[in-house]
Amino acid sequence: MLRLFRPILFICGILALVMAGLLLAPTLYGYAIQDPEYRAFGFAAGIALVCGLGLILLGREERFNLNSRQLYLLTSLSWLMLSFAGALPLVLIDHPLTLTDAIFETVSGITTTGSTVLSHLDHVPRPILLWRSILQWVGGLGVIGMAVSILPFLRVGGMRLFQTESSDWSEKSMPRFHEMARGLLAVYLLISVLCALSYWAAGMTPFDAINHAMTTVSTGGYATDDRSMGRFSNTILWISVLFMMLGSLPFTLYVRFLAQRRLRVLVDQQAKGFIYIVLFLVLLLTIEQLVVGERGLFEVLTHAAFNIVSIITTTGYASTDYTLWGEFSIGIFFMVTFIGGCSGSTAGGMKIFRFQLSYLFLADQMHKLVHPRSVSAIRYNGKPIPDDIISSAVAFSFLFFIVLAATTLALTWIGVDFLTAFTGAITALTNVGPGLGETIGPAGNFAALPDAAKWLLSFAMILGRLELLTVMVLLSPVFWRG
Amino acid sequence: MLRLFRPILFICGILALVMAGLLLAPTLYGYAIQDPEYRAFGFAAGIALVCGLGLILLGREERFNLNSRQLYLLTSLSWLMLSFAGALPLVLIDHPLTLTDAIFETVSGITTTGSTVLSHLDHVPRPILLWRSILQWVGGLGVIGMAVSILPFLRVGGMRLFQTESSDWSEKSMPRFHEMARGLLAVYLLISVLCALSYWAAGMTPFDAINHAMTTVSTGGYATDDRSMGRFSNTILWISVLFMMLGSLPFTLYVRFLAQRRLRVLVDQQAKGFIYIVLFLVLLLTIEQLVVGERGLFEVLTHAAFNIVSIITTTGYASTDYTLWGEFSIGIFFMVTFIGGCSGSTAGGMKIFRFQLSYLFLADQMHKLVHPRSVSAIRYNGKPIPDDIISSAVAFSFLFFIVLAATTLALTWIGVDFLTAFTGAITALTNVGPGLGETIGPAGNFAALPDAAKWLLSFAMILGRLELLTVMVLLSPVFWRG
Repeated sequence: MLRLFRPILFICGILALVMAGLLLAPTLYGYAIQDPEYRAFGFAAGIALVCGLGLILLGREERFNLNSRQLYLLTSLSWLMLSFAGALPLVLIDHPLTLTDAIFETVSGITTTGSTVLSHLDHVPRPILLWRSILQWVGGLGVIGMAVSILPFLRVGGMRLFQTESSDWSEKSMPRFHEMARGLLAVYLLISVLCALSYWAAGMTPFDAINHAMTTVSTGGYATDDRSMGRFSNTILWISVLFMMLGSLPFTLYVRFLAQRRLRVLVDQQAKGFIYIVLFLVLLLTIEQLVVGERGLFEVLTHAAFNIVSIITTTGYASTDYTLWGEFSIGIFFMVTFIGGCSGSTAGGMKIFRFQLSYLFLADQMHKLVHPRSVSAIRYNGKPIPDDIISSAVAFSFLFFIVLAATTLALTWIGVDFLTAFTGAITALTNVGPGLGETIGPAGNFAALPDAAKWLLSFAMILGRLELLTVMVLLSPVFWRG
Repeated sequence: MLRLFRPILFICGILALVMAGLLLAPTLYGYAIQDPEYRAFGFAAGIALVCGLGLILLGREERFNLNSRQLYLLTSLSWLMLSFAGALPLVLIDHPLTLTDAIFETVSGITTTGSTVLSHLDHVPRPILLWRSILQWVGGLGVIGMAVSILPFLRVGGMRLFQTESSDWSEKSMPRFHEMARGLLAVYLLISVLCALSYWAAGMTPFDAINHAMTTVSTGGYATDDRSMGRFSNTILWISVLFMMLGSLPFTLYVRFLAQRRLRVLVDQQAKGFIYIVLFLVLLLTIEQLVVGERGLFEVLTHAAFNIVSIITTTGYASTDYTLWGEFSIGIFFMVTFIGGCSGSTAGGMKIFRFQLSYLFLADQMHKLVHPRSVSAIRYNGKPIPDDIISSAVAFSFLFFIVLAATTLALTWIGVDFLTAFTGAITALTNVGPGLGETIGPAGNFAALPDAAKWLLSFAMILGRLELLTVMVLLSPVFWRG
């Protein structure tokens, strides 16, 4: 058993050291602005450092080879590790959060969900706001890394579609693997800096610009004020639209662009599909709002674009309470919550490529209904796709709805009202952020929910972030046998 | 083109004659009880007779061979035919329904959905009540016939799983085909008569017993009073539970039982799965209600069993407004609406075998996650199942949710509130009957919806009844090409 866990402990130790390093940012910032909370962050950094060193000592080994069972364990445990390390300062501050709230807020952060239990954000000490943003930023990076390096190697929900040479874990492909990792980090940093500079140039304070840049590019959605993005100018909203979209496109495309100077965004089938879907939905909502409302075109278009993009990219900012725009608006935001962005980005949701593969499968079926003897292969991005990848992508939606049903029922059992339970489960599993209804709608927050509901939703956020099966396989007997 | 439609016109003509014959029942009954509405039914029967003869003359042909395109057309057009013929008397009565309401009520009848636009049912003339029940009864028979004879032959949502010798349309299998058809009709009649006698023995009037028997066995759910089944004794509720369950099990099992004297219900994987799911859900709701409520065990068990069975079998009776039982109850009834009964029965919904195949597929995937090189075949009812049948069953849930999203959005665009639109679309597509909310919940009805919404829901009911793809293929260009 120790043999199974040893390399996992080692990597978790490294992650703890990374967290210790990151915790220095709010520590130093708090010290600089003379906010007394800096002590809590420094203390948490110390604990993370000690734990990290301990885990590394426990797990160090001469040879280092992970089999697929270890990869599953590693994926789940590393997110648990990040959650606990991230929650540390939140229980050490002057007015500490309860353990439940600290974990909920941290999990919502690193899964880039953006649901919050905090209110009166403008009165929350700034190091804490900074830490929430950092959690989302590092979570976004973690998701991209995981989607590029680990998930394609596992057989999870059709992710094998994205298996490339650089997702090979054999030793001879390690240099290519490192190159890709460096490329991703560079691109992620570059886009974040560009976003912060744009926000700053458009009128945000440096603190707001940095925080919102971190939560925009990671499609996380934490804000520094209860009004979310509602207090900013239309220019800022459009900048946000641009960078939320950039955060939801496959990051490997950017890396390849920088390496080969060829823009593949408009060629990549997933990226193209995502952009078309967003344009269609924004147009649809804009037309409907122009028909029913008395607001002008630019005003309607700005808020339709901002909020649709915010939800479909699973960021979860709000510029206004869109549930007051009428029934069609409630309907469309409800539906859009499921969709999500592209695989290989920071976005959550069911992912565009799954909708595309399911659509292609159904179109193929439709063809066979009429021509039963025709032989056809489904092609994606110009390549024929094996049947089992398609089935596994299609089956993901079935699994998603079963998990959604179970989570909703469990929440109503705890006593949460049906609308909050249902949309809370959806928004957690898709890592979007806000739900519907008075409690957890875009104008509310998650503080009022019972503790059990918060733990359940925290679990759902991790489940959704890790594409369900990666976690669920750990709960199956077959995993632990033999 | 005429060549394509000729045999279809012929069969539609025969169906019109059948409807003419059925219309004689309320005519004669109305005449016998001296209700003046009998004239409308007699007149409608005359029109159906003339149209039927006309269609038969138009469509008669020497040789008679249907290809698969014609089978698709036939399936959709025959349900349209039945809808229009069934609506005839409702626009001819003394206080006629609008065309929209007449079509909605008839489609809801023959698809055995049970949503109604009528209220004060105890004041509605009895021939009309009888006609509504007859529509559901004949609709139930139609669904079984279609599921056994036509759908397995087509490649619709995994229905090919049920392809047997008796679903072969070649000439040499015709005798076996006729034998199966006779068997189904006999079993359906027998169960209906037993149900009516049981209701009568338990205290219903003969009129109520006959009407409710027809709408129980067909899992339709039309009642003769606004209180639905709420005005009857617990004994009657349990009788109803029994016959709703019988109506939701595969009818071929009964036919085989009569022919071979071997009870396969407990061996058939779909039937067994269905019974287990029902027991589990009833138990779950009973426990929850005992925990929160102050009612006694038998009372809770009776109403939990009756209402869960009513919704999962897609009957749609209510014994009480279960949406007042608390949030867990709303959640569970919402989820159960999707499930439905067994394929080859009168029940609607997504069907048990699709959940089972999807589960088996996921379990197999889970196994492959850990043992990537293992080769396995999914077995159902002891037989290995080809991959394409499994994919097509799994993809059905994806298609279902896309159609649900589109229908909901269209309804909210018309101005229907989100909860009514969403649960109305679900209940129409699954042929259950009641939705959630004040308008269309178990205590409401569909009268208040705008006309456009009623047409949309009528279309959705037929779409759901014909397993989606059967209708949708007619809308695809590939169907009409070549």
